[in-house]
Amino acid sequence: MNRKPIGIFDSGLGGLSVLKKIQQQLPGEDIVYLGDTARVPYGTRSKKTIERFSIQCARFLVDKGVKCIVIACNTSSSNALEIIKKQTSLPIFDVVNSSIEALKELKSVKNIGVIGTSATVNSHIHRKLINFRKFKIVFEIPCPLFVPLVENGEIESKITDLVAHKYLSKKRDKVQAVIMACTHFPIIKKSIKKALGEKVTLIDPAEKLSLSLKEYLLKNNFESDRNNGKLTFYVTDISSTFKDTASVFLGKHSQLKIRKTSLDN
Amino acid sequence: MNRKPIGIFDSGLGGLSVLKKIQQQLPGEDIVYLGDTARVPYGTRSKKTIERFSIQCARFLVDKGVKCIVIACNTSSSNALEIIKKQTSLPIFDVVNSSIEALKELKSVKNIGVIGTSATVNSHIHRKLINFRKFKIVFEIPCPLFVPLVENGEIESKITDLVAHKYLSKKRDKVQAVIMACTHFPIIKKSIKKALGEKVTLIDPAEKLSLSLKEYLLKNNFESDRNNGKLTFYVTDISSTFKDTASVFLGKHSQLKIRKTSLDN
Repeated sequence: MNRKPIGIFDSGLGGLSVLKKIQQQLPGEDIVYLGDTARVPYGTRSKKTIERFSIQCARFLVDKGVKCIVIACNTSSSNALEIIKKQTSLPIFDVVNSSIEALKELKSVKNIGVIGTSATVNSHIHRKLINFRKFKIVFEIPCPLFVPLVENGEIESKITDLVAHKYLSKKRDKVQAVIMACTHFPIIKKSIKKALGEKVTLIDPAEKLSLSLKEYLLKNNFESDRNNGKLTFYVTDISSTFKDTASVFLGKHSQLKIRKTSLDN
Repeated sequence: MNRKPIGIFDSGLGGLSVLKKIQQQLPGEDIVYLGDTARVPYGTRSKKTIERFSIQCARFLVDKGVKCIVIACNTSSSNALEIIKKQTSLPIFDVVNSSIEALKELKSVKNIGVIGTSATVNSHIHRKLINFRKFKIVFEIPCPLFVPLVENGEIESKITDLVAHKYLSKKRDKVQAVIMACTHFPIIKKSIKKALGEKVTLIDPAEKLSLSLKEYLLKNNFESDRNNGKLTFYVTDISSTFKDTASVFLGKHSQLKIRKTSLDN
């Protein structure tokens, strides 16, 4: 297991923020990342289509011989985790369950909110996973414009502030914590806080996911014995705006060696 | 030919505005519409991927026995018209060439602008098609946020005004006409005019396309001999927000009988 790579997939490039955290925690691990950039976004699609696309992503990683699968996309985690579990015996780490784990560690939090894509919010997955004696979900709000805003670089932007205000300002000071159930949302957390109130704790599952993954590998002696892991980066499309979108998640000067692949033919 | 349907395809539901114009001009024609809602939008993808998806759409219509193909998507028209022409001998009507035809009919217009998706603008197709002695393209501007704004119902909205201002206000009063090279843009023409100046003529190719199509059918005696044509409406995905998006283009109380199909497996 030790020399096998970790597999990560996302609907597009949002999962790069999860990749970054995993690389920080586990610098010696080889990683295969797959972003389905030919069909991104998943968050506006039906459960059936999200399941079909996500299964194709998971199969691609299984074929690459990964030792575990990280679902870095909240839409896939919410809608396709169960069906992927039926298709593989590999351990799976997903951003939705990680956000619940992160929530549990917070102190003096009772009322929580969930924000995500339409498909994530409509799955009501967080309602199914939380402990109702401990937490109360006060709102679940789809924020569909946040993804295109982030992908188009509208960060610390008046436009994003206005959209966040429209979606969230009625819930200002109504909860102690909010799960950011979309990889794009941490990028615009300043706008989200302006709308929800500065006191709210915003939960980004990436940190917790990387810690759980590290714990699992160490516990089972599955961790890499090298110092520097190799990243193999696959996408299903490379558009003219690819670099700009990647730099939103990785910073301006990051270099990625990209390989193009196809999932649907 | 007379009883064969007209085939229309679009990356999603934006082409419904083109469908509407064709139904107005040719109420007796049977129509097969295909919207690739599982993979919309095309405007953020590479030319190669747009070609691949568009060929699949065109083939689907050919298999349905259509008498001609309408490409209602500017991104497909800009990037995939040539490759589709190589694959079928059916006559093709597309929104980009129709916009050039509409432009030719305008009087006292010299300086023009083009706005569209990233993939449409990056194709520079309008530069290749216009008569340089008659017209001068002063700007070509991608407006990538307009599509998600329209799809999320941000019509006559402060947010859309602000985005339009950001994209276009530097070009205010710089041209006499602007080609709206995306089916979504006519829906927010008020915001576009606020940014570009009230005097600008905004060109929507849908009207011209429907007239050219009618002319072609009459000239060749290919028109339907019935009074009421039948619409068969295919999409590749039906998400929870489908109805809302369709109503943006067709109005609140429209009813569509939808059939789901798949292009990629």
